[in-house]
Amino acid sequence: MKSVVIHSAKDLRIEDRLTEVPGAGQVEVRVAAGGICGSDLHYYNHGGFGSIRLKEPMVLGHEVAGHITQLGEGVTGLRLGQLVAVSPSRPCHGCTYCSESMYNQCLDMRFYGSAMSFPHIQGAFREVLVTDATQCAPADGLSAGEAAAAEPLAVCLHSARRAGDILGKRVLVTGCGPIGLLCILVARLSGAAEIVATDLSDFTLRIAKQNGADNTVNVGQTPERMTAYGANKGYFDVHFECTGVPQALADGIAALRPGGTVVQLGLGGDMRVPVQTMTTKELQFKGSFRFHEEFFTGVELMRRNLIDVKSLITHTVALEDSESGFQLASDRNKAVKVQIAF
Amino acid sequence: MKSVVIHSAKDLRIEDRLTEVPGAGQVEVRVAAGGICGSDLHYYNHGGFGSIRLKEPMVLGHEVAGHITQLGEGVTGLRLGQLVAVSPSRPCHGCTYCSESMYNQCLDMRFYGSAMSFPHIQGAFREVLVTDATQCAPADGLSAGEAAAAEPLAVCLHSARRAGDILGKRVLVTGCGPIGLLCILVARLSGAAEIVATDLSDFTLRIAKQNGADNTVNVGQTPERMTAYGANKGYFDVHFECTGVPQALADGIAALRPGGTVVQLGLGGDMRVPVQTMTTKELQFKGSFRFHEEFFTGVELMRRNLIDVKSLITHTVALEDSESGFQLASDRNKAVKVQIAF
Amino acid sequence: MKSVVIHSAKDLRIEDRLTEVPGAGQVEVRVAAGGICGSDLHYYNHGGFGSIRLKEPMVLGHEVAGHITQLGEGVTGLRLGQLVAVSPSRPCHGCTYCSESMYNQCLDMRFYGSAMSFPHIQGAFREVLVTDATQCAPADGLSAGEAAAAEPLAVCLHSARRAGDILGKRVLVTGCGPIGLLCILVARLSGAAEIVATDLSDFTLRIAKQNGADNTVNVGQTPERMTAYGANKGYFDVHFECTGVPQALADGIAALRPGGTVVQLGLGGDMRVPVQTMTTKELQFKGSFRFHEEFFTGVELMRRNLIDVKSLITHTVALEDSESGFQLASDRNKAVKVQIAF
Amino acid sequence: MKSVVIHSAKDLRIEDRLTEVPGAGQVEVRVAAGGICGSDLHYYNHGGFGSIRLKEPMVLGHEVAGHITQLGEGVTGLRLGQLVAVSPSRPCHGCTYCSESMYNQCLDMRFYGSAMSFPHIQGAFREVLVTDATQCAPADGLSAGEAAAAEPLAVCLHSARRAGDILGKRVLVTGCGPIGLLCILVARLSGAAEIVATDLSDFTLRIAKQNGADNTVNVGQTPERMTAYGANKGYFDVHFECTGVPQALADGIAALRPGGTVVQLGLGGDMRVPVQTMTTKELQFKGSFRFHEEFFTGVELMRRNLIDVKSLITHTVALEDSESGFQLASDRNKAVKVQIAF
Repeated sequence: MKSVVIHSAKDLRIEDRLTEVPGAGQVEVRVAAGGICGSDLHYYNHGGFGSIRLKEPMVLGHEVAGHITQLGEGVTGLRLGQLVAVSPSRPCHGCTYCSESMYNQCLDMRFYGSAMSFPHIQGAFREVLVTDATQCAPADGLSAGEAAAAEPLAVCLHSARRAGDILGKRVLVTGCGPIGLLCILVARLSGAAEIVATDLSDFTLRIAKQNGADNTVNVGQTPERMTAYGANKGYFDVHFECTGVPQALADGIAALRPGGTVVQLGLGGDMRVPVQTMTTKELQFKGSFRFHEEFFTGVELMRRNLIDVKSLITHTVALEDSESGFQLASDRNKAVKVQIAF
Repeated sequence: MKSVVIHSAKDLRIEDRLTEVPGAGQVEVRVAAGGICGSDLHYYNHGGFGSIRLKEPMVLGHEVAGHITQLGEGVTGLRLGQLVAVSPSRPCHGCTYCSESMYNQCLDMRFYGSAMSFPHIQGAFREVLVTDATQCAPADGLSAGEAAAAEPLAVCLHSARRAGDILGKRVLVTGCGPIGLLCILVARLSGAAEIVATDLSDFTLRIAKQNGADNTVNVGQTPERMTAYGANKGYFDVHFECTGVPQALADGIAALRPGGTVVQLGLGGDMRVPVQTMTTKELQFKGSFRFHEEFFTGVELMRRNLIDVKSLITHTVALEDSESGFQLASDRNKAVKVQIAF
Repeated sequence: MKSVVIHSAKDLRIEDRLTEVPGAGQVEVRVAAGGICGSDLHYYNHGGFGSIRLKEPMVLGHEVAGHITQLGEGVTGLRLGQLVAVSPSRPCHGCTYCSESMYNQCLDMRFYGSAMSFPHIQGAFREVLVTDATQCAPADGLSAGEAAAAEPLAVCLHSARRAGDILGKRVLVTGCGPIGLLCILVARLSGAAEIVATDLSDFTLRIAKQNGADNTVNVGQTPERMTAYGANKGYFDVHFECTGVPQALADGIAALRPGGTVVQLGLGGDMRVPVQTMTTKELQFKGSFRFHEEFFTGVELMRRNLIDVKSLITHTVALEDSESGFQLASDRNKAVKVQIAF
Repeated sequence: MKSVVIHSAKDLRIEDRLTEVPGAGQVEVRVAAGGICGSDLHYYNHGGFGSIRLKEPMVLGHEVAGHITQLGEGVTGLRLGQLVAVSPSRPCHGCTYCSESMYNQCLDMRFYGSAMSFPHIQGAFREVLVTDATQCAPADGLSAGEAAAAEPLAVCLHSARRAGDILGKRVLVTGCGPIGLLCILVARLSGAAEIVATDLSDFTLRIAKQNGADNTVNVGQTPERMTAYGANKGYFDVHFECTGVPQALADGIAALRPGGTVVQLGLGGDMRVPVQTMTTKELQFKGSFRFHEEFFTGVELMRRNLIDVKSLITHTVALEDSESGFQLASDRNKAVKVQIAF
């Protein structure tokens, strides 16, 4: 069975791995589509991010969907041949955070394709994946590519939950990669009155407009347009920060109304922050990391045609062309979501 | 200037009233459209509701829109000829609740067309209305009828705020009059995954489906379909109760998941309620009454094409035919929102 | 091993039952104190409550504490001889509500001493109890009686969580049985500015004053004092309703400020409720049922001397005198919490 | 009438100013006590803070209490000779934030003794102060010094509101100046299970213990004790950050449990922040600035003996010794709150 394995920065290989046998409560999935995510790109381009570094070869990937090819003992509610989106979230269900249903904070999380622990947790970019039945969301009626987008969609649904009430609110989204664009779709779905999106790339800003942004600002070209939003202490109610770049966070802090909310999705290490402004304007900042049950909600919303991610999947490459897919996905002026067809 | 005046049950008259002159900060509005609301119907059909009774003739109406014909001294941001939706909410801005921005709980509210106090607060069904500029929401681009729907829309936006997070949730709406139908539109806008609507009239249930209900239940014909939703302690996350009928509230209490929320909009006096079930399932019940700033939000959402109320305005009658309009509006099998064209 | 077994109304027997052997992760507890709760009294006096009826003999009791006499395999963090409070809450950890950490809504709850399911879940009024180690809260430094009060305390801590922010608020407590009195202690601990308590018994109202109520109202003697609180739309921010009696709920609804919160702990079946007032005043009603993790919090708060329940334990009877304890506990003019010394 | 006027850094003068006459709705107050606050110290020691600089002489002071010596026309509810705490918060009641009852965000705030606008808003360190009756909280039963502490107490009550539910929670307070110490008192009043306080001064840490801190950490001497709280992703639920120092904020971020809350009261300009940790642990950061109605709540809580600030008022100096009071208040090893007796 072929897998997409990262050995070190720029050393990506297609390798054979052994196939497992599904145990009780498990299923075997023939993977059909796998989306390349920002963390995959960090492993590919830099061998890790921040203090998290590759220490051994690791199968990449955590955004996958495929068809069920075997049902383990006792599995109900799924059937052979069915398309399923596979949640990469595998909490331990035993630690203190799991017991409070803060599954994304599990002390022993085994999230696919992550070098946060050692041995690394191997990922899901493989032709055949054995997984717990409870990780599988039936995706009948969706394409495999759409189903594979359930994971980043779940990230953004979770962030919208963190944001609280969006109905009739003014929303700022900084960063229009896949996460930013999905935040726009989710904010639109949640009843935002107005959505303004920023990025450095006109390519992604155009896609932002197509997916529901009312206005876009290229902050590389016209940063002064953000300043204008700061009049009378600010304009926006909610800011989805999807870059991890200090200036983007600072832009939002200046442009939020007193009492407004920053939901931080971008990961950017330590950074310089205008904390005094956050304090005097009584902003609230909320970190948003991964997701809980929103994976299943996301699949349901796509199946009900309430969220349409198709225009975000700009490229699909064959398994053997995976590396070109990683290169393409690294170029924000050409691609949004790049998926591998297994 | 002609006005629509209720003297007692079934005694509706078109009468001349004196025109006022707009003072500082006020405008004169030539009313173009006025929607007949449930409370107007109560005054017309029963001379009041509950303990609130007509004690003197009263101009009816609180859902109006029209064109500005005079600007009082110091008015800015509005212009002659402009279509505006007029908010009927006139809190005192001085009492303890106003100081906490609970304007809908004002101790000295002068809401148009209300017999809650004596002398009654005269209403807005009149050819010419002098109003504070701050009550006027610019409605450029909307029809007068749409603008006049801003008031019931605000009621429903307020109730959605009360409900909290609706994104990806299952929503039950009991009662498909104008308020129930607008709750469906607002729940859809807020990202509800599934909306089920109930009523006794197939006419309104059909309109519910056209406006976003996924399923409808005629609880006069198939009440058992509601029972099914009670399996495993319940199905819905949120219930908008728009009837004030005990059975509708009880249906929701049985069909809500533990921890679910009833937002009560319907006014039905004292009633028998399954309080023990609410307690053991830890439901929360939230009253929702009128609105705060949501009037302006509603106009903005219509102008941005995020809410479309057109199909709810089933009939428009001429001023001289007002009484037939009241009769029509009283028949849930024929009409949803009936408006008077002034 | 002796147990307190209810066969039918007024038929309470001390019977021998077999002792179990603690399995892996379990401990054996020599029960030292057991508090008689309102539901125990319902089984004793009426053979059940509402639709819940005794169908077979059942060991009563769910408020117990005792000393560890055996440690099953793999148990850590507890030691032989240690006093522990034993949580009666045994959710399945597998159902949909458990997975959302709504453990008190578990679809397969095995709460001690409950006839809600059949076969009934046997209770904890027994000399020796084998229990999961995870149910045991170390109670070093407390008396066995205080430790046995952890269960009703947890009920009230849970209800305070439901109430939200209490700091500086005005609180009404209706009903001064053990639950009402513990709500007073918890409201005081949470920073309530003013607490008013009501009951029909001067005996319990006196204890309410000793435990932190600023004022008390005997609603049997001076019901008009409650009416006065309704001026200007109301006085209280939060109402803990601990009776399940319609008049008590109605009193609170009239006396709460607009936007105020009723937390309903009392169980009283269906009842007539002033729903219209709840709606126009935009009250929120929140059911509160049992508890989650608050059992452990309660033991911690007692150990830190932040909650003192001693004056609520008015009587302690020997095991052989259990029936007299049940009779005493049924008389609100003589007793608050009656405990059995095993 | 003598006033305490700052001209520039270290140039503090006692000057005569004209007395005003109370207008309608106003009262004249003979100031009895005035507390020196951190912002007063910044003006005295540095001529301002951050971008806020003295541009003209300014009467300092915003923590005052005194006795009413004249009642303007129409004033009710106050009487001659009565001790009142005077709120320094004077919002415009007309701007968009006031209309949403976000009075502390008023666009035209006239807070006593502030150089945030020009001309500066003159302060309240003067023998005679004419003020709106609505700014006065009756303080019968308190000492003038206690009443003058109502202002910093209100700051901390507001921050506790921002923090949300504290009952049974673990609380970290960084910085034990007057604000930190009052946060300890308020957290204790709100039912915190455990409070840990940090500072660089053993003097203030000792006072922290006397006022309810369970444990204290001198982070200058034993910073490693904070590190230990970071095991298993963290220990505290709530962090009141009262220093504005980057390390204190970072300490809290490391020591908070996932999902925990930082309430930021300290003002420290831009600073380097571990944003990635805040994101992955899904912390929430909430700025807290000044107060709304909590001024009146604070006076009520002191009058009810629920908050006792007496031990925080370590020094009282005569008006003519004001400068020595400012010097004393600048030394964290000798003084907590220094007040001027007028």
